[in-house]
Amino acid sequence: MDEKSRNRDGKALIILSGGMDSTTLLYDIRDQGFEVSAVTFDYRQKHRREIACAQKTCQHLGIPHRIIDAGFLNDIAPSSLTRDDWQVPEGRYDDETMKQTVVPNRNMVLLSIAAAYAIGIQAGRLFYGAHAGDHAIYPDCRPVFVSAMTTAFHLCDWHDLILEVPYLFRTKADIVKRGLSLGVDYSLTWSCYKGEEKSCGKCGACNERLAAFSEAGVQDPLEYQ
Amino acid sequence: MDEKSRNRDGKALIILSGGMDSTTLLYDIRDQGFEVSAVTFDYRQKHRREIACAQKTCQHLGIPHRIIDAGFLNDIAPSSLTRDDWQVPEGRYDDETMKQTVVPNRNMVLLSIAAAYAIGIQAGRLFYGAHAGDHAIYPDCRPVFVSAMTTAFHLCDWHDLILEVPYLFRTKADIVKRGLSLGVDYSLTWSCYKGEEKSCGKCGACNERLAAFSEAGVQDPLEYQ
Repeated sequence: MDEKSRNRDGKALIILSGGMDSTTLLYDIRDQGFEVSAVTFDYRQKHRREIACAQKTCQHLGIPHRIIDAGFLNDIAPSSLTRDDWQVPEGRYDDETMKQTVVPNRNMVLLSIAAAYAIGIQAGRLFYGAHAGDHAIYPDCRPVFVSAMTTAFHLCDWHDLILEVPYLFRTKADIVKRGLSLGVDYSLTWSCYKGEEKSCGKCGACNERLAAFSEAGVQDPLEYQ
Repeated sequence: MDEKSRNRDGKALIILSGGMDSTTLLYDIRDQGFEVSAVTFDYRQKHRREIACAQKTCQHLGIPHRIIDAGFLNDIAPSSLTRDDWQVPEGRYDDETMKQTVVPNRNMVLLSIAAAYAIGIQAGRLFYGAHAGDHAIYPDCRPVFVSAMTTAFHLCDWHDLILEVPYLFRTKADIVKRGLSLGVDYSLTWSCYKGEEKSCGKCGACNERLAAFSEAGVQDPLEYQ
């Protein structure tokens, strides 16, 4: 039996932010034959345009999609991504100032809620789109953190759940290249942390996105201010 | 410097369900000199009387207390503790049927949200009241799970957070004895999973509570049906 046929029996859940990485990962695991469902979190992020993107991509691909309200994160975990009175910093994605965009423990919260949901729908795998460019600023995207969570997921329930983070050592440019080969429609993804009508082109997320497209040798379909 | 003086500098957060174990733990760490705050989760549990108990205990002790809405757990994580159309099983706490009272991945979800909150208020320690009697039925109370989460907590943020589970190898009877020596008012705690006017005396939580009081040689102050 080839890999695709094996995966066909496998139910998987993906955390789909609506950004480029998780959207590419969705196309990727669908291509690998998994029976995929997606979950997106509304934590009152300023860049909530990403939620609408996640929704459109799932409609486009016919993927069951659930949006979970995690609004409490805005109250308890201050960050420039969620608080109106904190400004989103501009600059490179790996600049020290980008640490203001860390939502404390966000990924463990989202991963654990997604895991509860995955157990409920009897998915055997949970996919999460952290990638190599995230490691410098986001502690909860680092391989050591993923490794600790992998162990915790093996133990959190009588049902076994495998955490899969296939892009953990891939750059964003690699991900774009992979996505283009899979036919990802990047006009249905959102990255800019400011979440205004057009992407700002100045925040860390915009800079990282633009650099990835440029390295991949293609034009980003989004409009910039 | 003695231990109490050292702890006096230490901010700590406790997950306080309003049951016997976490309430005793709250008295215990307060006695050890920590500057304690408490957090309680409303996940639409049938036994929501425990939330009111947590509130009363915190008022009584003058502990800052926050109730966090985790209602999404009821939607995504089916269990007889949360669903009206699932009956709470009766019997011993460690009976196989008690597995119906597992809320899938509940503790990882609650721990991770509490950790986000702890990081926000700059607490260095997060206390959690799992005890030895929980291991047989609740996968997310087992020492192996606690150990995995301890590692994950070290890595989830740039701020270090220590997970403390001091009752992990204590029996519930030990906890009652400790609580009595600390002056815990057990009339302000709730255990019964059914959450009716009086405790049922038949569910796993009631049976476990009654056995602990009986082993400690004292009368439970709660009324039973």
